[in-house]
Amino acid sequence: MAENQNDRSESDTPQKTAGTEYSTKGAYVTGGEFTRDTNYIEDRVVADVAAVESAPTEPSSKIGDPRIAGLTEGAEAWPVEPGRYRLVAARACPWAHRSIIIRRLLGLENVISLATPGPTHDVRSWTFDLNDDGRDPVLGTERLQENYFKRFPDYPRGITVPALVDIPSGAVVTNNYPQLTFDFSTQWSEYHREGAPDLIPQDQVEDMLPVIKRIFTEVNNGVYRAGFAGGQDAYNDAYRRLFEALDWLEERLADRRYLMGDTITEADIRLFTTLLRFDPVYHGHFKCNRNKLTEMPNLWGYARDLFQTPGFGDTADFDQIKRHYYVVHEDINPTQVVPQGPDLWNWLSEHGRESLGGSPFGEGTAPGPVPDDERVTGANPLYDD
Amino acid sequence: MAENQNDRSESDTPQKTAGTEYSTKGAYVTGGEFTRDTNYIEDRVVADVAAVESAPTEPSSKIGDPRIAGLTEGAEAWPVEPGRYRLVAARACPWAHRSIIIRRLLGLENVISLATPGPTHDVRSWTFDLNDDGRDPVLGTERLQENYFKRFPDYPRGITVPALVDIPSGAVVTNNYPQLTFDFSTQWSEYHREGAPDLIPQDQVEDMLPVIKRIFTEVNNGVYRAGFAGGQDAYNDAYRRLFEALDWLEERLADRRYLMGDTITEADIRLFTTLLRFDPVYHGHFKCNRNKLTEMPNLWGYARDLFQTPGFGDTADFDQIKRHYYVVHEDINPTQVVPQGPDLWNWLSEHGRESLGGSPFGEGTAPGPVPDDERVTGANPLYDD
Repeated sequence: MAENQNDRSESDTPQKTAGTEYSTKGAYVTGGEFTRDTNYIEDRVVADVAAVESAPTEPSSKIGDPRIAGLTEGAEAWPVEPGRYRLVAARACPWAHRSIIIRRLLGLENVISLATPGPTHDVRSWTFDLNDDGRDPVLGTERLQENYFKRFPDYPRGITVPALVDIPSGAVVTNNYPQLTFDFSTQWSEYHREGAPDLIPQDQVEDMLPVIKRIFTEVNNGVYRAGFAGGQDAYNDAYRRLFEALDWLEERLADRRYLMGDTITEADIRLFTTLLRFDPVYHGHFKCNRNKLTEMPNLWGYARDLFQTPGFGDTADFDQIKRHYYVVHEDINPTQVVPQGPDLWNWLSEHGRESLGGSPFGEGTAPGPVPDDERVTGANPLYDD
Repeated sequence: MAENQNDRSESDTPQKTAGTEYSTKGAYVTGGEFTRDTNYIEDRVVADVAAVESAPTEPSSKIGDPRIAGLTEGAEAWPVEPGRYRLVAARACPWAHRSIIIRRLLGLENVISLATPGPTHDVRSWTFDLNDDGRDPVLGTERLQENYFKRFPDYPRGITVPALVDIPSGAVVTNNYPQLTFDFSTQWSEYHREGAPDLIPQDQVEDMLPVIKRIFTEVNNGVYRAGFAGGQDAYNDAYRRLFEALDWLEERLADRRYLMGDTITEADIRLFTTLLRFDPVYHGHFKCNRNKLTEMPNLWGYARDLFQTPGFGDTADFDQIKRHYYVVHEDINPTQVVPQGPDLWNWLSEHGRESLGGSPFGEGTAPGPVPDDERVTGANPLYDD
């Protein structure tokens, strides 16, 4: 295990405290409670490099902030440039899935290409094993780890997706996923498709950030806190927090079609990728089993509404999602058997959310069909005959 | 592990085939597929010892047969005698739970006493750890294994519940659970309470046995076949078989209040103890997750109808049920964390099954309240304030 990133982190990572244990998931467990490693490569790809470089240094933002003008300490600015960057995003991963959806909603397919690592990875890295020859056809690498090493030969932390890679050098530019998608909206606007929605409406940012933050700590990360709890007390606490937040969302969505009101915003995408995985994975595998998503009428209607909206369901690969969690987490599923259930047809059932009014893309339009070479190949009721 | 029953079975048990692995669960895994060890101590407690001893030898019946007159080869007949036997039955275990329900429905509480081992056991045995001093107050033993050894000092197979123990000698008389409950009905009739239901109506036996058999192989045991599958193919096959059988039952119960028609029979008790555990355990822990029980309207209505009938729900301890599976099966749940969910209140919701007609106890009556010293102490919505 000499090449294990996690072993390296033992000595190199100042954030590491005694008694913690790193994992490839970019996370560690302390005293039974799961804690996500939120230290990323915080470079940014921006429309105006000079302006960003000369702006005051920003505090590291763990949930991202679309209003930040500068860089966090030690970070660099890279120029927006069509064709220069490759988004490496596993369909299985909820954090990466966000970036796939937002790239598609904004119509960035032709300016930022997409590499999708397979659903399972070993302790070292996500790999490009879905390609016939086991290499990404553009980057030429077999493992995403190689692209991290091209940036930092001693990169000490988890090899995470999404990662934006500079194609000429093969080096990872950023894996700071919360900032990445905000920058897709705010920095790449020159290249957005016609009709691209405004996912970060100016007049809603102030209200949206606390919602996004609570969704991150309590839901996106809350399911992991439950699933990776090392003991009963930590699990019980995680379970309580998670369902408290889901109850809050259930109520919030009773009279709002989307989280912030009448149109889809970045907050919705961040919630959607967790909801999509709830019944197939988190309910059983992570023991988030007070109820299924299908048993929370507003959240379930909301999730289906999004699923049936172009850009959401058409990016979902339930096979990859299930294989990822059930195969990779051998510590909580030693047999690595992947469940057959649940039935998925109900994602296409009527949700009735139109009666709440609103318009998914505001003044914008829905994205067109998924490009042929980016079509989902695994289980998805949208593609079933 | 010198005292491990399972290790002993390596050499002593002729049924054992190469490549199989015994477990305390009285079961083993061959070629990835889970197989239940159906070799039991097949003695019987009967109303007329002489008649049974002189009857022709019966073939070993793996699902029990209420019509058998004699003994299987090597088995002995013991006389029905009030106060002589103690039923050792863990509330956690579905096979043992049957005997608790049937003893109560028939009103045998005053003639056959009840010992309830705790929900968790080690590789050696179920234990009487729910008692303050860790000993069963009547048998005086700490582990049920001791009572097996009093019968056969070299007993080579799994220490299973239910077990009927002869109190004077402390020896296990039988652990042949399918026959045990039939004999409660047919051999102990002199001691049944007034109004005890006829759980094995003469005119339905012929039709009931195939139903019971299919429920045993496909459902009672089917959930274990899924959960203990050693590989993906064995699991996939188990999942398919299980839900095929549940679909059959769902249809069967569309126009029948109970499995055999208008009244509760032994077949219903055998199905009930598996349905009770379905959402709390089998759905997640055993990956039986095409859908929850609550998503099959007829089966869910049927299960609630029984739960709300005296003798069924009032014997259910959801805490013990969950602790048993999630703590004991460390091989499939290494953290041994026990899920908090699912919500249980819905077991008390209206089921509407009365509209199908019928009468749960036929010409009989419901049992009275649970004796104080046999009240369930763990989670149960019937007992929540």
